[in-house]
Amino acid sequence: MKKVLLLTPGPTPVPERALLAMAKPMIHHRTSEFQEILKEVEESLRYVFCTKNDVLILTSSGTGAMEGAVANLLSPGDTAIVVRGGKFGERWGELCEAYGVKVVALDIEWGKAVTPQEIETALKNNPQAKAVYVTACETSTGVSVDVKGVAAVVSKTSAVLVVDAISSLGGVEMKMDEWGVDVVVSGSQKGLMIPPGLAFAALSEKAWKLVKESKCPKYYFDYTKAKKCVEKTDTPWTPAVSLVIGLNEALKMIKEEGLENVLARHAKLAVAARSAMKALGLEIYAKSPANALTAVVVPQGVDGEKMVKNIRSQYGISIAGGQDELKGKVFRLAHLGYMNEFDLVVGISAIEMELHKQGYKLELGKGVKAAQEVFCAK
Amino acid sequence: MKKVLLLTPGPTPVPERALLAMAKPMIHHRTSEFQEILKEVEESLRYVFCTKNDVLILTSSGTGAMEGAVANLLSPGDTAIVVRGGKFGERWGELCEAYGVKVVALDIEWGKAVTPQEIETALKNNPQAKAVYVTACETSTGVSVDVKGVAAVVSKTSAVLVVDAISSLGGVEMKMDEWGVDVVVSGSQKGLMIPPGLAFAALSEKAWKLVKESKCPKYYFDYTKAKKCVEKTDTPWTPAVSLVIGLNEALKMIKEEGLENVLARHAKLAVAARSAMKALGLEIYAKSPANALTAVVVPQGVDGEKMVKNIRSQYGISIAGGQDELKGKVFRLAHLGYMNEFDLVVGISAIEMELHKQGYKLELGKGVKAAQEVFCAK
Repeated sequence: MKKVLLLTPGPTPVPERALLAMAKPMIHHRTSEFQEILKEVEESLRYVFCTKNDVLILTSSGTGAMEGAVANLLSPGDTAIVVRGGKFGERWGELCEAYGVKVVALDIEWGKAVTPQEIETALKNNPQAKAVYVTACETSTGVSVDVKGVAAVVSKTSAVLVVDAISSLGGVEMKMDEWGVDVVVSGSQKGLMIPPGLAFAALSEKAWKLVKESKCPKYYFDYTKAKKCVEKTDTPWTPAVSLVIGLNEALKMIKEEGLENVLARHAKLAVAARSAMKALGLEIYAKSPANALTAVVVPQGVDGEKMVKNIRSQYGISIAGGQDELKGKVFRLAHLGYMNEFDLVVGISAIEMELHKQGYKLELGKGVKAAQEVFCAK
Repeated sequence: MKKVLLLTPGPTPVPERALLAMAKPMIHHRTSEFQEILKEVEESLRYVFCTKNDVLILTSSGTGAMEGAVANLLSPGDTAIVVRGGKFGERWGELCEAYGVKVVALDIEWGKAVTPQEIETALKNNPQAKAVYVTACETSTGVSVDVKGVAAVVSKTSAVLVVDAISSLGGVEMKMDEWGVDVVVSGSQKGLMIPPGLAFAALSEKAWKLVKESKCPKYYFDYTKAKKCVEKTDTPWTPAVSLVIGLNEALKMIKEEGLENVLARHAKLAVAARSAMKALGLEIYAKSPANALTAVVVPQGVDGEKMVKNIRSQYGISIAGGQDELKGKVFRLAHLGYMNEFDLVVGISAIEMELHKQGYKLELGKGVKAAQEVFCAK
């Protein structure tokens, strides 16, 4: 008997409460019933984004909201500073290039985080840059960026700071207003615990000013149109009704647990995961590891791709392999969203058993023990 | 006790089988398990689209696929002929304008259908036009367009024919390959019976040639990228996993019933709906009515908007009101998707009761009787 357990950095497990809400008969989106749900969702999203700004709800994967954050802010010929330290940082660059935006690339060695100082220097060298694009948690490498520090630097300039918080929101602290982040984009299938299909964007006043000047073509991802709709608790196009209904339940759960507690839970899970991997003699890939997932270097003699496949096929448990240049070189264990101590215990346990089968020398249970010690610590 | 019944032209009711499939624990999209589902879905979509071409699966509402059908086919400065006979025809025009495409508008009086002859004339007068944009079933007016006839005209020219089949596919005949339609776009929440959040596009070889010349910026809705993914049973971005799983069930149901039978069922429901409305002394708004929905003129002395609201709040049954210039002037009764004779009987019955309450003179049951007569006819 295999039980499905998702320990991947998106999609993450969907709480039963959200699954059941989504399994109810379909309702129409232009009704007071749906409008009440949408209103609750909008309020809850502001709470999770730590912002007073409207949070736009888009029916797309996170990449759609990212595209919007280029097409709505900039014009062809504009310059943007793009931090590229993994697959998703590279996506910001590709998006800018697709719209004729000049990219000043800050290429960071994979596994390392950009520093606020590096961004400060890039802004000084490129004062014409209208925007800085950063990935809060680079899902491909497990690296966490000091968004607060970056925001302190960018907010002193005329440029706006755009943060991809797709795999961090709801798991890693993101104080949009307090830190002075101008644009935060996110998605539904990570810390927000529902299936993929919704994306979000929140913009500061400084960012909305830039939107007014933008000359890139846009329609489906037109943020101005979406904002007008939020103001009357509506959506510009038919939204993914069932996902919005599921999101409402997931957001209620976050509110009931309390955002601070949710973030503390993620922090503890992350410490436990790293501690477990180290106890097994494994190396954490990221120098500045994120609380959403732990990327681990595949040890010599172990087949990383086979490892991920075996754990899934034999045990029903999904961890993620490496992407692009990290294919086969790392495995990624997520601890994001609807996830508690025992999910992690199961994940660590499966990793231990598969490594053991592949001939890697370890003491079974040693990783689990290290995690338990973190959980039991005061 | 109110029972929810959706008789709106999207979202339409979702079969229990699809709801339950979507309520299962979330799975990851880069797995053989999901790939098998995606493969089945791709094959079934070809069957419903009546095409050998790949059907691209996009996570968005139908408008996203429409945007793709502009941004991927044309370049700024190109000319397109756009049939505007309702809200959704107008959307084609807005999309073209957003991308700097010159619009030759064929403005058709709302309620009437464009004729193949009118399109032939427009193409003769505008030989530089690279594309013709048509709405198969104009959801705002209930009008059906003779897509087969239009395709016969357009296929003789160098222009491509792009058809919005969002509210018709799976309910109204659409023989893409046989008729020579170049691009068909559709959505998930209509004849395909699942919640909103997925959109589709299929392109002919003639259309793919145009894609190669296109200079509009695109990324999330990049059809070329999506096609490369279909070829390896993948998606470019994280897809709406649960909706794809639900779609697989809904498409299995269409295959089990047989597409011909599905279309015949819709045709019969449409005849019954029109017959019922006429029996009540009401006027059908569309001169060339679609089999997906029936738009009915609100009779004098009846408040059309109140009517829709009352039926929803008192009985739990949703029909749609008029949009834009038709607000309060028509009501729209859909018979699209997961819908049988008795759903229509319920809908007609609710309309009769509400009209009666508002003082409209009718014989209760007369509309229901007319529908039953259609159902019982050999």
